[in-house]
Amino acid sequence: MDKLTVIKIGGNVIDNPAALKRFLTAFAGLPTAKLLIHGGGKVATQVAEKLGIQTTMVEGRRITDQPMLEVVTMVYGGLVNKQIVAQLQSLDVNAIGMTGADAGTVLARKRPVKDIDYGMVGDIEEVDSGQIQFFLRQNLTPVFAPITYSTAGDLLNTNADTMASAIAVDMAHHNDVTLIYCFEKKGVLKDPTDDNSVINELTPALYADYKAAGAINKGMIPKLDNAFRALENGVSKVIICHADEVAEAVKQGAGTTLKK
Amino acid sequence: MDKLTVIKIGGNVIDNPAALKRFLTAFAGLPTAKLLIHGGGKVATQVAEKLGIQTTMVEGRRITDQPMLEVVTMVYGGLVNKQIVAQLQSLDVNAIGMTGADAGTVLARKRPVKDIDYGMVGDIEEVDSGQIQFFLRQNLTPVFAPITYSTAGDLLNTNADTMASAIAVDMAHHNDVTLIYCFEKKGVLKDPTDDNSVINELTPALYADYKAAGAINKGMIPKLDNAFRALENGVSKVIICHADEVAEAVKQGAGTTLKK
Repeated sequence: MDKLTVIKIGGNVIDNPAALKRFLTAFAGLPTAKLLIHGGGKVATQVAEKLGIQTTMVEGRRITDQPMLEVVTMVYGGLVNKQIVAQLQSLDVNAIGMTGADAGTVLARKRPVKDIDYGMVGDIEEVDSGQIQFFLRQNLTPVFAPITYSTAGDLLNTNADTMASAIAVDMAHHNDVTLIYCFEKKGVLKDPTDDNSVINELTPALYADYKAAGAINKGMIPKLDNAFRALENGVSKVIICHADEVAEAVKQGAGTTLKK
Repeated sequence: MDKLTVIKIGGNVIDNPAALKRFLTAFAGLPTAKLLIHGGGKVATQVAEKLGIQTTMVEGRRITDQPMLEVVTMVYGGLVNKQIVAQLQSLDVNAIGMTGADAGTVLARKRPVKDIDYGMVGDIEEVDSGQIQFFLRQNLTPVFAPITYSTAGDLLNTNADTMASAIAVDMAHHNDVTLIYCFEKKGVLKDPTDDNSVINELTPALYADYKAAGAINKGMIPKLDNAFRALENGVSKVIICHADEVAEAVKQGAGTTLKK
């Protein structure tokens, strides 16, 4: 099977034009077929504030009401996605920006209301990896904004880490997939206060130990849960590294590599 | 050659959710392969105002400075484009939303500064109709926002009428193309104050007469110039009609049909 590198970049890279340019240049140079999923960064929050849209929090979690969905659609699906596409075109990558609604690539379902009504948030139901494969065969590089759609015609806000994991898993039916989460640290850290305490290899047993000890906590937990899920479901390799190390990660490994 | 209907809808349809839904339902039911180019509507102006971005006018013409380009990219390329795509998906049309930057479909050049610096405005250089044809063959329906890109990696604001005309002309290499401009009137009017004074057939000679008499004026002139240019460059049929009459226009004609 052909190699495919699925990369997720977080908001911190998007918020920093110089970092984004470095990343996109490295991304453009990757030797395999590739696919990018981007987060949103602070721009959405800034735009929402300027538009006078309140961020609704329920039990510490952000709710996507209709006005916030519109902001997310504008900023992630429009501004960020198209700026990345245009930059990639200038780097000779024939990028095609999309949300999950485009070409019906990532179908979701509005999250059912249990204790909390998250609003217009989508849980992924189905990835059309055949359709994505068709773009790759045409030498196009899909660039996904973290937005999905429902059969009812709604757009839905979806976590970018989860979207990357779901796409990687489904693409593993067609490709030998490496999934790379790029973020602002050099990898998963043993000691969150020491940027050089990168764990080179992480197994589920080690992950459990670090969680129990509190060394891995907060936002890293859902990220790693997504990452291990991908590994258990057909993705060949999962790496978590700094956005500046993506070329090394693909070449010889960098940051933290997850092992089954 | 296979028939292809290229349709441009204007801002007035986009500003009215009920009218947009009616239009998209008719569009979904068209019997030919199809492609949509949409304008922006008032949302961009409203968002710009709320964000405190001034609209710069020079000699009565709007200038696209960098902040305004970002608004246009958000609103046209994100919000409007993705809402249309999601609605079309719910109508069983496998729509794929794009700007000219996506898949390198519509390359432009920043308009050279002569008397006026229009800012980030793109004059179309090249349409990759082969790429668009490839989407159509895959049973995808492209939905274009009026944004193009330059080889330097810039996004550029481009007039939607011009973009529709340029795409239609280039697609005529592959297809028997009908180009339809949908707007808020029933067609080109003999008397701008009488909505029922539709000119059924318009030739270049008649057009010249109506222009000389002042019956056709203002915004209709660039629209008709674009329309006649398409007809002279390989497009089989050009129609200008109300958005509610698009099904009739494709079936037996409606509004104003341009003749060579």
